[in-house]
Amino acid sequence: MIDIAILGYGVVGTGVAEVCRLNQAMIQKRVGEPVNIKRILDVRDFPDDPFADRITHDPDDIFLDPDISVIVETIGGAGIAYQLSQRALAAGKHLVTSNKELVATYGPELMELAHENGVSYMFEASVGGGIPIVRPLHKCMSANIVESITGILNGTTNFILTHMDQDNTDFEAALLEAQARGYAEQNPTADIEGIDACRKIAILGSITMGEFIDSRQIYTEGISAITSIDLAYARVLNARLKLIGRFHRVEHDRAELIVAPMFISQNHPLAVANDVYNAIMVEGNALGEAMFYGRGAGKMPTASAVVADVIECAMHIHRVPHLLPWTKTDRKIIQPHVSCPVMVLVRVKDEVPVETIESVFAPYGVRLVPAQADGEQAFLTGHDATLTEDQLQVSLDALGTAVINRIRLLDDLTRPAIK
Amino acid sequence: MIDIAILGYGVVGTGVAEVCRLNQAMIQKRVGEPVNIKRILDVRDFPDDPFADRITHDPDDIFLDPDISVIVETIGGAGIAYQLSQRALAAGKHLVTSNKELVATYGPELMELAHENGVSYMFEASVGGGIPIVRPLHKCMSANIVESITGILNGTTNFILTHMDQDNTDFEAALLEAQARGYAEQNPTADIEGIDACRKIAILGSITMGEFIDSRQIYTEGISAITSIDLAYARVLNARLKLIGRFHRVEHDRAELIVAPMFISQNHPLAVANDVYNAIMVEGNALGEAMFYGRGAGKMPTASAVVADVIECAMHIHRVPHLLPWTKTDRKIIQPHVSCPVMVLVRVKDEVPVETIESVFAPYGVRLVPAQADGEQAFLTGHDATLTEDQLQVSLDALGTAVINRIRLLDDLTRPAIK
Repeated sequence: MIDIAILGYGVVGTGVAEVCRLNQAMIQKRVGEPVNIKRILDVRDFPDDPFADRITHDPDDIFLDPDISVIVETIGGAGIAYQLSQRALAAGKHLVTSNKELVATYGPELMELAHENGVSYMFEASVGGGIPIVRPLHKCMSANIVESITGILNGTTNFILTHMDQDNTDFEAALLEAQARGYAEQNPTADIEGIDACRKIAILGSITMGEFIDSRQIYTEGISAITSIDLAYARVLNARLKLIGRFHRVEHDRAELIVAPMFISQNHPLAVANDVYNAIMVEGNALGEAMFYGRGAGKMPTASAVVADVIECAMHIHRVPHLLPWTKTDRKIIQPHVSCPVMVLVRVKDEVPVETIESVFAPYGVRLVPAQADGEQAFLTGHDATLTEDQLQVSLDALGTAVINRIRLLDDLTRPAIK
Repeated sequence: MIDIAILGYGVVGTGVAEVCRLNQAMIQKRVGEPVNIKRILDVRDFPDDPFADRITHDPDDIFLDPDISVIVETIGGAGIAYQLSQRALAAGKHLVTSNKELVATYGPELMELAHENGVSYMFEASVGGGIPIVRPLHKCMSANIVESITGILNGTTNFILTHMDQDNTDFEAALLEAQARGYAEQNPTADIEGIDACRKIAILGSITMGEFIDSRQIYTEGISAITSIDLAYARVLNARLKLIGRFHRVEHDRAELIVAPMFISQNHPLAVANDVYNAIMVEGNALGEAMFYGRGAGKMPTASAVVADVIECAMHIHRVPHLLPWTKTDRKIIQPHVSCPVMVLVRVKDEVPVETIESVFAPYGVRLVPAQADGEQAFLTGHDATLTEDQLQVSLDALGTAVINRIRLLDDLTRPAIK
């Protein structure tokens, strides 16, 4: 029998217990012996829970128990979760997590600690919820030099944008709806400001580079400034508006990363991901494009990815992984946004003369787009010649306060329709 | 240094050598030491090839070489490839293959032999070409009871059907085009008759059940009887016509499997897969739906999946996997097609009175569909009440030779459009 413990009995933690119970027989068949939840650490009690008798408030009940070989951390955040994760690994327990903030922040430290103690630190559930992506990227695509990773990585914002588009509501109403359905937290900042998506693209980029990418250094825009007028432009352009996290290798050891709302062609494969679904496209130099799609969040999907990692640990209790997924180095991996070509829709106040627009953006091409609101005009630029992020900024500065909004294009929106 | 050998220097074999050469530095970083192609077995010589000096015609140069620890089998077929695979494993070499025919036919024997000899038998490339699916299904989704697997698993037939649809050509012309582009072999039988897709769904089903599913017992229809008229019906129904391989669990240890051309809603996520692309949707009881999409065939994509398995072997040269992916048992897993609900488009000669159609199919509902060819009428049935495969057969028999064709529906084609 393999004894495990759960730290934090919230949404994902209870899901882990539920998956273990629901699929108990199958898990036992896979592992070769039963997997038993021996202890659950939480500050609360759960008297009506089927696992009520396993609840403890004392971490020592877990860390000092020699029978417990695998620990699940589903606390979240990088505070107490970090301390308890360190204790778990130092105690020689395999550790499985769904905590992207912790992996994105202290991943290298925890991997190193795991390595020193001859155990695994696993985090498939930290990106894409239940969608397999961490292991496929790390293992199945390991013969590829990954050129880019482009993903709809946050279910909350994708729900909000889908809802704004399909029901023609504004951002605030869509956010309330997301909260009412349990898709958004009461404090939705990490989701709507792109911080969650940023941590996830940092994790995927770190796997790809084999080196730590600090999510706090990634240029990040959220969706809180998106209005229904932006979505009207999406329709005019035959595009969808998505919060995109993107990793793009520019040299052997340099990459550009960005998180921002972007227009994508409605025929782009990523456009299949609506509502709370996520989709992640990976481009390898041998494989070409591959895409992974599914529910990127939610109790049971995320829990199933956690339990898959538990099964993997349980099957190889005494194996030590001999190389770390990534390490911290002094090298600067993130390229400042200078070379990445960008196409962009710019909305400006209508007092700006077209001549001014054409003169400022002349080197990159200007295509007027029918205005979707009174008092403004809109145009696409960057399609005729390379417009870099730096050049974009310089050009926008030239228009000053006349700029209402600007939204990047992921592709040129001319992807042919599939009949 | 890890020495490896390649058996069979055809399309995939040369691709493996090319990926190893192209991504040499990255592979070395992953493995921790260089991976060196020491020998290549083929009956031919390749005097102008960069690896010309590694070519041998004598298998003993490989099997008796103690330095070679990993062997790649890219011969194809279940003849000489089977014999050489047995020799490789018996000699204590890890074995990696892209050969779906061999895995689908002799998988259990080879896995058992690998186990006895303390080595791995790996086959990520056997399904989905370069798309990660074998390991994600086996490892990442291991906490799920997989309810169904539905896939566009064969790139050749998907190219033919896409081409027939978009360019309005007939089957023969589309096949010639596929052959001209190197997507179809000169003898295309295994592809166009669904045999290749059948082997792949058998492999995925076997992983899911943990028991051998004999592909030769799976009901299989190909696309050689599909005409441009069938594709006209697809357009009328707002559907796409795809060759679908489907595994559907009906009980704990029973499953229905089928390979057949089917209409799918144009809004179905699988509909993103056109041309030579594959897409595989997996439904787990905790995860819900997840989809994997990418190039399902081709030299470099497939080779990259092979090399990923080589890297995995090279990283764990002395590790023995402690459980087999699946075993052969006496249990009958494949359920005869009796309970699977089916909706179907039936095309009949126009001398059949509508009253006859309505009387024969009355229990299941009849919806007339505008005829797309002279001398015929068409209708949908099975949408009002469950029509099983057996009942379908009985009903079609009642119409006898008046039946021109019938094509199943994967879904009810009412999936709402994504705006």
